[in-house]
Amino acid sequence: MIVDDDDADTLMIEEALLTAEPQPAVHRVADGSEAMDYLRRQGQYEDAARPDLILLDLNMPRMNGHEVLAQVKSDDALKSIPIVVLTTSTALPDITASYTRHANAFVTKPMDLEGFEEAVQKIKRFYSEVAILP
Amino acid sequence: MIVDDDDADTLMIEEALLTAEPQPAVHRVADGSEAMDYLRRQGQYEDAARPDLILLDLNMPRMNGHEVLAQVKSDDALKSIPIVVLTTSTALPDITASYTRHANAFVTKPMDLEGFEEAVQKIKRFYSEVAILP
Repeated sequence: MIVDDDDADTLMIEEALLTAEPQPAVHRVADGSEAMDYLRRQGQYEDAARPDLILLDLNMPRMNGHEVLAQVKSDDALKSIPIVVLTTSTALPDITASYTRHANAFVTKPMDLEGFEEAVQKIKRFYSEVAILP
Repeated sequence: MIVDDDDADTLMIEEALLTAEPQPAVHRVADGSEAMDYLRRQGQYEDAARPDLILLDLNMPRMNGHEVLAQVKSDDALKSIPIVVLTTSTALPDITASYTRHANAFVTKPMDLEGFEEAVQKIKRFYSEVAILP
């Protein structure tokens, strides 16, 4: 699941995720409020599938990534879903706050297209080939 | 930091960690109780350095890995330290309980030496080259 308000970044993340077999089903929402509706199966998301992994942007309208982290990681029904923060931020307060709120990893989006796609593929490989997901 | 009661496994983990530059400083403790003393700088560990990353076994004497996870991830001074559970277990209850207690990743120790070393190196690479640590 991708939670990101940036359309260009989302397109890159989706393309990077879909290059390797098996291709994952990817669902994208554009802000934190929509993410919480999806995860709690509210409104239009009554039949939403539980994501294996969430790639979470920090700076988004309506509800930012820090608030999503805080809500998901304190919700007994959702807290076991791994969340990788994927953001343009390199600010130490964002890094520390993300890990303190139990982000599973913090990754800064590389500025170049190639580096960006590689980072997304490495996240995917780590959480599918090295780590075992719940 | 390695928290593991198995000497042979610890040796393999240390060797795998030390193959790539820059070589990390590795501190090993053999059970959960010693791990908590180290992290809280109690007793002989008054001058202990804060670890960047903890590789945590689950089945250990005195205090097991689940208890270490629960204590570290509910301690405001320690909870931002990433913990990768590294265990022989493949049991779903162990996987789910680890992520619920905010393990950053769950990795099963591969049975073969080569696979084991490769897994440790991939963990190290992910948390040093892809993710940014706090």
